[in-house]
Amino acid sequence: MIKVGIVGGTGYTGVELLRLLARHPQVALRAITSRKEAGMPVAEMFPNLRGRVALAFSTPEEAGLETCDVVFFATPNGVAMQQTRALLDAGVKVIDLAADFRIKDVAVWEQWYKMTHACPDLIGEAVYGLPEINRDKIAGARLIANPGCYPTAVQLGFLPLLEAGVAEPGFLVADAKSGVSGAGRKPETHILFAEAADNFRAYAVGGHRHWPEIKQGLDSFAGQPVGFTFVPHLTPLIRGIHATLYARVTRDVDLQALFEERYAGEVFVDVLPAGSHPETRSVRGANTCRIAVHRPQGGDTVVVLSVIDNLVKGAAGQAVQNMNILFGLPEDMALADIGMLP
Amino acid sequence: MIKVGIVGGTGYTGVELLRLLARHPQVALRAITSRKEAGMPVAEMFPNLRGRVALAFSTPEEAGLETCDVVFFATPNGVAMQQTRALLDAGVKVIDLAADFRIKDVAVWEQWYKMTHACPDLIGEAVYGLPEINRDKIAGARLIANPGCYPTAVQLGFLPLLEAGVAEPGFLVADAKSGVSGAGRKPETHILFAEAADNFRAYAVGGHRHWPEIKQGLDSFAGQPVGFTFVPHLTPLIRGIHATLYARVTRDVDLQALFEERYAGEVFVDVLPAGSHPETRSVRGANTCRIAVHRPQGGDTVVVLSVIDNLVKGAAGQAVQNMNILFGLPEDMALADIGMLP
Amino acid sequence: MIKVGIVGGTGYTGVELLRLLARHPQVALRAITSRKEAGMPVAEMFPNLRGRVALAFSTPEEAGLETCDVVFFATPNGVAMQQTRALLDAGVKVIDLAADFRIKDVAVWEQWYKMTHACPDLIGEAVYGLPEINRDKIAGARLIANPGCYPTAVQLGFLPLLEAGVAEPGFLVADAKSGVSGAGRKPETHILFAEAADNFRAYAVGGHRHWPEIKQGLDSFAGQPVGFTFVPHLTPLIRGIHATLYARVTRDVDLQALFEERYAGEVFVDVLPAGSHPETRSVRGANTCRIAVHRPQGGDTVVVLSVIDNLVKGAAGQAVQNMNILFGLPEDMALADIGMLP
Amino acid sequence: MIKVGIVGGTGYTGVELLRLLARHPQVALRAITSRKEAGMPVAEMFPNLRGRVALAFSTPEEAGLETCDVVFFATPNGVAMQQTRALLDAGVKVIDLAADFRIKDVAVWEQWYKMTHACPDLIGEAVYGLPEINRDKIAGARLIANPGCYPTAVQLGFLPLLEAGVAEPGFLVADAKSGVSGAGRKPETHILFAEAADNFRAYAVGGHRHWPEIKQGLDSFAGQPVGFTFVPHLTPLIRGIHATLYARVTRDVDLQALFEERYAGEVFVDVLPAGSHPETRSVRGANTCRIAVHRPQGGDTVVVLSVIDNLVKGAAGQAVQNMNILFGLPEDMALADIGMLP
Repeated sequence: MIKVGIVGGTGYTGVELLRLLARHPQVALRAITSRKEAGMPVAEMFPNLRGRVALAFSTPEEAGLETCDVVFFATPNGVAMQQTRALLDAGVKVIDLAADFRIKDVAVWEQWYKMTHACPDLIGEAVYGLPEINRDKIAGARLIANPGCYPTAVQLGFLPLLEAGVAEPGFLVADAKSGVSGAGRKPETHILFAEAADNFRAYAVGGHRHWPEIKQGLDSFAGQPVGFTFVPHLTPLIRGIHATLYARVTRDVDLQALFEERYAGEVFVDVLPAGSHPETRSVRGANTCRIAVHRPQGGDTVVVLSVIDNLVKGAAGQAVQNMNILFGLPEDMALADIGMLP
Repeated sequence: MIKVGIVGGTGYTGVELLRLLARHPQVALRAITSRKEAGMPVAEMFPNLRGRVALAFSTPEEAGLETCDVVFFATPNGVAMQQTRALLDAGVKVIDLAADFRIKDVAVWEQWYKMTHACPDLIGEAVYGLPEINRDKIAGARLIANPGCYPTAVQLGFLPLLEAGVAEPGFLVADAKSGVSGAGRKPETHILFAEAADNFRAYAVGGHRHWPEIKQGLDSFAGQPVGFTFVPHLTPLIRGIHATLYARVTRDVDLQALFEERYAGEVFVDVLPAGSHPETRSVRGANTCRIAVHRPQGGDTVVVLSVIDNLVKGAAGQAVQNMNILFGLPEDMALADIGMLP
Repeated sequence: MIKVGIVGGTGYTGVELLRLLARHPQVALRAITSRKEAGMPVAEMFPNLRGRVALAFSTPEEAGLETCDVVFFATPNGVAMQQTRALLDAGVKVIDLAADFRIKDVAVWEQWYKMTHACPDLIGEAVYGLPEINRDKIAGARLIANPGCYPTAVQLGFLPLLEAGVAEPGFLVADAKSGVSGAGRKPETHILFAEAADNFRAYAVGGHRHWPEIKQGLDSFAGQPVGFTFVPHLTPLIRGIHATLYARVTRDVDLQALFEERYAGEVFVDVLPAGSHPETRSVRGANTCRIAVHRPQGGDTVVVLSVIDNLVKGAAGQAVQNMNILFGLPEDMALADIGMLP
Repeated sequence: MIKVGIVGGTGYTGVELLRLLARHPQVALRAITSRKEAGMPVAEMFPNLRGRVALAFSTPEEAGLETCDVVFFATPNGVAMQQTRALLDAGVKVIDLAADFRIKDVAVWEQWYKMTHACPDLIGEAVYGLPEINRDKIAGARLIANPGCYPTAVQLGFLPLLEAGVAEPGFLVADAKSGVSGAGRKPETHILFAEAADNFRAYAVGGHRHWPEIKQGLDSFAGQPVGFTFVPHLTPLIRGIHATLYARVTRDVDLQALFEERYAGEVFVDVLPAGSHPETRSVRGANTCRIAVHRPQGGDTVVVLSVIDNLVKGAAGQAVQNMNILFGLPEDMALADIGMLP
């Protein structure tokens, strides 16, 4: 059994990790920390876990994280980087669901996250945990930077085009829509029900922290710096991301075959038949990314539609997938939930 | 492996049965029928099932239902009663998710369902599939009448009070609220998104078909005819029923202990601590009924709050639970999903 | 023109007052206060008001409230009672949308609101602003206690029954459901979109502050203390209250005629035809209360369904209605919006 | 008083016309037709209209449309073209809210709408009813083709860029999101609450009927054929369209000033301050289009955000605006509703 600790369990990625790990046959949940809620059973905060997760929140000091095999950080940005070195030194593997180790250029990271990085030397060692790209590196890693939700949906959608060199790299557009759980569980006015329900809006058009993360990936796929515009929107879903991607194709190619071949062996990427439109609910609660590729009216614009559950493939599910790879388990262990429809 | 057939798989109880049975380790799905959609892969209609359910819809004639071990009817009222005798004669067990065999008094049934019953002699044999009451009878049955969604939530909420004789039987009120999936997948104006979203209304105050089904149960628990008022409401949820029950207590009793003791051994009924308010989302996708009991300001009115997922404990999940009992399997096999929150 | 000031304009009742008053032909908006947001144009916080309301928030000191003809308090409980006396002394009429002057028994008020009342002597003078009961008193008042949202829906539903003495006063039940805007605009976890959407729950079953306010009214209608149970629920609406009321009739009476006659002259109470079920959306944005009365299956239980928009007839609209009465204007001036459907 | 008839009043544009026209001080509603519902009071179908609209549906034969001053067609595509000539001959002005007269090239129209046009000679006479472009022509017209919902939001967003010649015309992208009321009130499975709630999806990526309508406008603004990609999405709103528009700027220009100047005199187009993100709810129920323009990180991509209420500025409100222009009334008469927020 893998001994698992979770740091920061009071947000949505925390409860989602618990929902998935509680049914993982190779996992022994050892600790979940929250300094503020120490002593409270997690099932009191998250009643769906009643009868299924017996743990109570503990302080970081009591949690014994250094005796775990792996620790997940489901914390705000800037927390994992403070604690990672000590855990690695103790032989514990670390999977950070926040952004501390996602961006290789520390200056870029510090500019976007407005903090000084606490351990820049570990950034190079960290493996970006998108298994469809980095599976082998993940298997041998000590430290995994679990991708962001938008970056997962957008990168998986652009990947086949850029790897194959069939898209003009200078004008890539990602118009992305996220459910409100993506904004977290900390109470803020703009994510109140009466503000976000029956409402639709863009935000952060001037610049979103997932832009440099995505651009880093796209640059790498394309082998050159790309021109990339990213517009996120808030939509009245609880869960779900829908990324609509636009690019110009540079040569004639069977796009459907290109996508199907690229993802042929991937258990968690489902390329839909030509002409399809994936729905976010088809992956609600599931670790799947569903993708469709279109070329409207045979023009030179390609449109890729990519959907995930932001809390599963976009966060906790991908983190468990990475853990499975790290420990040599079947990649889909405890990740077999079928999307809940309706 | 239990060979399973499903009649009528194009509605919400059908797809939910598939979601649950696809992961059941003792089930081999043999056939799912729809005369109208014969030939179409079920995953084309329900994209969440892509890669998980390979079956296509078949006509009833091709389906080979008589070679199954058990057949679920996920059909409109009045269909199962036409086909049940032949299946029973062929040694197939039948679980009807519709109302054909729920009401023992055939005259009452025919009055409320406005049809002549096709096999009144089988009504007596049918076992009402509420395991918390009829577990032993279910184990030995050939024909299970799976309870309605409202009746499950309401009966489990009133049961301890009436069995113990602590509620005045003459003035029981159930104010129940249902998500819109309870109205089915057949397109009708009043359940369109633009009609049902951001809207709340009661319906059928003058008489709902679940009233006689619930009353039959309450009469039985109380050992006498009860006075029972039932007001259903439509609320903008996809899934979920919340029943708020009102009764007058006739003697002083520890209601919290009464409920906890009654359901002490039940894996799918969770009595919350005193003072709690169950949320429908805590059972979203799960086969659990969560119940809380209150006595506001120490008066003589008892208020019971009872929540289920109408498609799981209120339909497909309870049907699988009944199947597990019928075949001697652990009652929670393939029913271990944790409620999806958020 | 009536010079109007608003104290506390950053919540939902504040913006709704502005939406209504901005189109009131007899109103000159003079000031809206918010110490925290002083200087910010209200249209920056509430973009629906762009181009329609030019005011900026001001500090209470700068607002010149004592030069207004009427001041609305759209503040948390406990604020209006601090400032009312000075305004009344300056000849300003006061309409408090909070609870400071609603309950006549100051001890009861202090018990439920957990504060010492700042001006108990003014409670007696305050008129409870439910025009359907107190129209004449309102016309001559200096100080109006605008009713709560639940109390408006529940009292208007019970009123004809209790006034006519046809309901048993000992066992009245109000099962009420509210949209989330009723909880205000202050960020709290339980009213986040990802918590409150696709979810239904009761709350405060043990005791809600609107219970004593409603009971005070029902006692008065009945001419004796009533037994009253009140269970509020949170439902995924932005706006809307649906109250489902239960009582036992004590003698045979034409309930439909009783309701129609009681509300025959009321422009804002609409008694639906027999057999109807009012929808919250039919009053979305409108100052109307729609009511239907049922007697299921001819039994002795009467069921009343009563819907309002909690921000209009349940708050800001009723406050403007009271202002119109106070100043001798047509009662529906600036309140002619038709419910927005869909 | 302007005598008004409405053909086809059982859909959402019909009820919205009634909501607006019922409060129009210069309008006398004469008839609303529905062959199917003839005889039923409209307020029975749309309870928000109770007490405000006394009309019953009538058959087209009884309606006396030829005695009206203006007739609105709120019908499916292909109906208005059958009846328009007779009405024009009788001296009645016609405003078609469907697509029959929107596209000048009849061959293109017939290809996309899969019908033979009944009166191609009237297409040339018809004026495209976007007042911000065609105000003068509208004033003198007999026949108005009221624009589609997407076309209104998208054209108003691109207009300043293309008129000024600052966008590369070869690669214009409109990523548009619509509330579900845009799909109409006819019951279909994919717009059921349980299908469309908590779900997000694109549709018709291969080709949507609004594409040629929008392209016709953009070609005209640009003075040359443009390359235009249009991807519509369904989002869980009742009302609202959010269009996110992408183009490449060809020369340095103050985009904020460009937009502000273009719409300086427009009462129903509101250009937000630089850096803003318009919300659909800010125009809920209002005839306003709110627009913001961005140039992310100073690059050569311009992003325009444009929101409308699809039933108001995208349909019924714009139709009333056109009627006001036709009859020489103030353009905003009966269109002064403030967006309902929350």
